Amino acid sequence: MNRPIGVIDSGVGGLTVARELMRQLPKEQLIYLGDTVRCPYGPRPKEEVITFTKQMVNFLLKKDIKLLVIACNTATAFTLDLLKETLSIPVLGVIQPGARAAIKVTETKDIGVIGTVGTIESDAYPDALYSISEDLTVHGLSCPQFVPLVESGRFSVEASEDIVRHALEPLKAYEQLDTLILGCTHYPILHDPIQKVMGDKVNIISSGEETAREVSAILSYQGLHNESHEPLTHEFYTTGSEEIFKQIANRWMDQPIEHIEQVVIDDRTE
Amino acid sequence: MNRPIGVIDSGVGGLTVARELMRQLPKEQLIYLGDTVRCPYGPRPKEEVITFTKQMVNFLLKKDIKLLVIACNTATAFTLDLLKETLSIPVLGVIQPGARAAIKVTETKDIGVIGTVGTIESDAYPDALYSISEDLTVHGLSCPQFVPLVESGRFSVEASEDIVRHALEPLKAYEQLDTLILGCTHYPILHDPIQKVMGDKVNIISSGEETAREVSAILSYQGLHNESHEPLTHEFYTTGSEEIFKQIANRWMDQPIEHIEQVVIDDRTE
Repeated sequence: MNRPIGVIDSGVGGLTVARELMRQLPKEQLIYLGDTVRCPYGPRPKEEVITFTKQMVNFLLKKDIKLLVIACNTATAFTLDLLKETLSIPVLGVIQPGARAAIKVTETKDIGVIGTVGTIESDAYPDALYSISEDLTVHGLSCPQFVPLVESGRFSVEASEDIVRHALEPLKAYEQLDTLILGCTHYPILHDPIQKVMGDKVNIISSGEETAREVSAILSYQGLHNESHEPLTHEFYTTGSEEIFKQIANRWMDQPIEHIEQVVIDDRTE
Repeated sequence: MNRPIGVIDSGVGGLTVARELMRQLPKEQLIYLGDTVRCPYGPRPKEEVITFTKQMVNFLLKKDIKLLVIACNTATAFTLDLLKETLSIPVLGVIQPGARAAIKVTETKDIGVIGTVGTIESDAYPDALYSISEDLTVHGLSCPQFVPLVESGRFSVEASEDIVRHALEPLKAYEQLDTLILGCTHYPILHDPIQKVMGDKVNIISSGEETAREVSAILSYQGLHNESHEPLTHEFYTTGSEEIFKQIANRWMDQPIEHIEQVVIDDRTE
């Protein structure tokens, strides 16, 4: 089954998911599309997010993807159910894998979630958590400072610790909290300062890692693993500047990204 | 979707998987069947394991299960593909979830697997690991002392450390090894002595925890989560002594098991 896995994101954040897919599924080819020119999706109305997401999906369907990952929390919250219903290929979002991993590791059943204002206000994480287990306490906190911090490149512990500490202060009041979900695909880049501020006893859950794990599970379940031994070329597309995308990708990813191409998707019919 | 999840095992080992299912999926009802009277399956010929497993599956299908977990490594190795092909409900084994979790956490890509002689000789774990990633080193080791140790009840660190240390000695030679898969459902009961012997830097992967996580993923993917709020009664069946099963279950599980019943399954037609 030598067809690629498609990954869509509102911009570069989903590269943390792509990085994990490449690490955990080294035999699979990826095609990534980041709608950087219209990023962020967080503050946009639901209907607009749905329209933009459908345009991204149409672009990837023409590349004959065998599975779609919505590597954007906002787009997952607004379009996952719709896309699962309408597409004939498996569709996975980033919210449920993060929720499931948190339920697996928590002992106190006291869980924090950080994300953009849009994701936190949507209650998508509490909904996903409570749909699996009602015996939980969930604390949501939006951290609007974090995406600009990551995109600025100042993500070392030294450069970011003060901002991270200030932002996470409200969560420190919950003494029982033992698990924190990074509910935005940018945040794994801040993993180390977040772990330092929260302390070693708090489990930090990265949606990217968990989503890659579930993609692997669905590929096995559906018999869709790539069995060919041909060399892979991952393809990365952006609706914005190739140069900026390349700079960020090469800073975040474990291996250099060769194929990066700017594309136009918004003149397509749905 | 208020139908139960079915769990089959050659005996009591699968209770570690059931415990994790109850912890991670508290809204789901379980029906467990342990073929204790014919346990262990490890040394039996493949055709016999297939026949016995089919008898267990037939018993659970009459209980209208919505998903089947094969909580026995030997039965997974011999029957997973067959059952996936022939049943109309989702079927999960314990080998692939353990393999995937190991790939997710390893950094050195040097992985150990311990299990019964049958599981290690079947190469089921190396096959599952290499099917996902070829860039791994895998060391298998059978630990025939562990199942009797667990069933004898001497599983505290003090009582079992010497036996565990002696058994795992061959793995200590692999300095790069950073992940150890417990490839037998009895072994999570020995988690603490195994962790102590291997050291804090080695990630111990429990197939039960990982399988429960993937059951949750498949329930979400297929829209099969229980949405009713009726109280749940888990049902446990054994082909052997109710009394012995109850003693072990109440020592291992987080909550008392009420419904335990002895059944006969081998006079059924396939």
